[in-house]
Amino acid sequence: MSQAVASPSTSRRTASKGAATRDAILARAYSLACVQGLEGLTIGGLAEQVGMSKSGVFAHFGSREDLQLAVLDTASERFTQLVMVPALRQPRGLPRLRAIMQHWLFDWLRQSQEHGGCLFAAAASEYDDRPGAVREQLVFREDQWRQQLARAAQLAIDTGELAADAEPDQVAFELYAIAVAVHHHAGLFGHADARERGMRAFERLVRSYSPTA
Amino acid sequence: MSQAVASPSTSRRTASKGAATRDAILARAYSLACVQGLEGLTIGGLAEQVGMSKSGVFAHFGSREDLQLAVLDTASERFTQLVMVPALRQPRGLPRLRAIMQHWLFDWLRQSQEHGGCLFAAAASEYDDRPGAVREQLVFREDQWRQQLARAAQLAIDTGELAADAEPDQVAFELYAIAVAVHHHAGLFGHADARERGMRAFERLVRSYSPTA
Repeated sequence: MSQAVASPSTSRRTASKGAATRDAILARAYSLACVQGLEGLTIGGLAEQVGMSKSGVFAHFGSREDLQLAVLDTASERFTQLVMVPALRQPRGLPRLRAIMQHWLFDWLRQSQEHGGCLFAAAASEYDDRPGAVREQLVFREDQWRQQLARAAQLAIDTGELAADAEPDQVAFELYAIAVAVHHHAGLFGHADARERGMRAFERLVRSYSPTA
Repeated sequence: MSQAVASPSTSRRTASKGAATRDAILARAYSLACVQGLEGLTIGGLAEQVGMSKSGVFAHFGSREDLQLAVLDTASERFTQLVMVPALRQPRGLPRLRAIMQHWLFDWLRQSQEHGGCLFAAAASEYDDRPGAVREQLVFREDQWRQQLARAAQLAIDTGELAADAEPDQVAFELYAIAVAVHHHAGLFGHADARERGMRAFERLVRSYSPTA
């Protein structure tokens, strides 16, 4: 049998078409996982949704677990783009910390609502008792995010806007608590009320950690 | 065909045996729902677990939805017994508020851990976007619990332990935030660290709402 030899430009086009297909599959998988959870994802179900054969999807993701890990990466990337990237444009200290909370409670919550749920909230409940690579990756991502929050809190201590004896990890835990509660509350009692209560909780938290408190 | 006529004492025995069977099925259903979620419950799956026929389980719960609602009632009853009943033995005000948080973060979390997850945390994520009777009952139960928390906060305002201008609903939201975050954190990073951070967050919250803050 003769082997077709692709010219360099053809294989570049093929590779970029492959990447575009993979991105399109991932976007659909992300939307599905927001509603059904990562455990609800199957190669077969996804293939049906994107109008491909199962082997077509398998060609892009070697296994269901690889697909779940790629969806988790997609969620982290979107979270970074919606929350951290715009917040980093604000001056370090309290303005940046407040921007993180605003983008988290408004922009991330809105995109979660549009997709039918927050992937991380669902995953935390799915994987609290399910060991394996997906749980490890989830813990890694959540820990990474805690560390970023703690660093942002440390910068606000450095600028003198938060008290010198505030513990960055504890501040990060408490900021996290507000966001998790807003997501929980929003899903059951409505988004506007949840966001408003969340930002009030944030402002009280900041006051209670201020150097003059 | 002749009809068997039960004597009063026989029918009492039958009724109490029926209630015991129903309770045993519910206990198993509750455990399953903690792991798989309320949406993971099926009459068929449950029948297999308790070694009964599907029609035997159907005789106790007319439908899958009735079963889900009964499991939610079971969860609420257990929560009340583990958290609210012992807390009500404490004097009204801050001691009772602190007892609520301790029983919530220690006793409720421990039983959730033993069952493989907190049913309410999983349900909030399952039903944030799924209308129907189960969601309505969940919202009702969560709202009822918020109101109990707000009442406990109001009593601490009345005793002068929290500031007069503290808003009980906001205090309840912030207490809720701590508990939800502890559950989330515990599932990913371990229970001991989560509880300790949660109680520190509670003590800071109390200080920030104290009349002298």
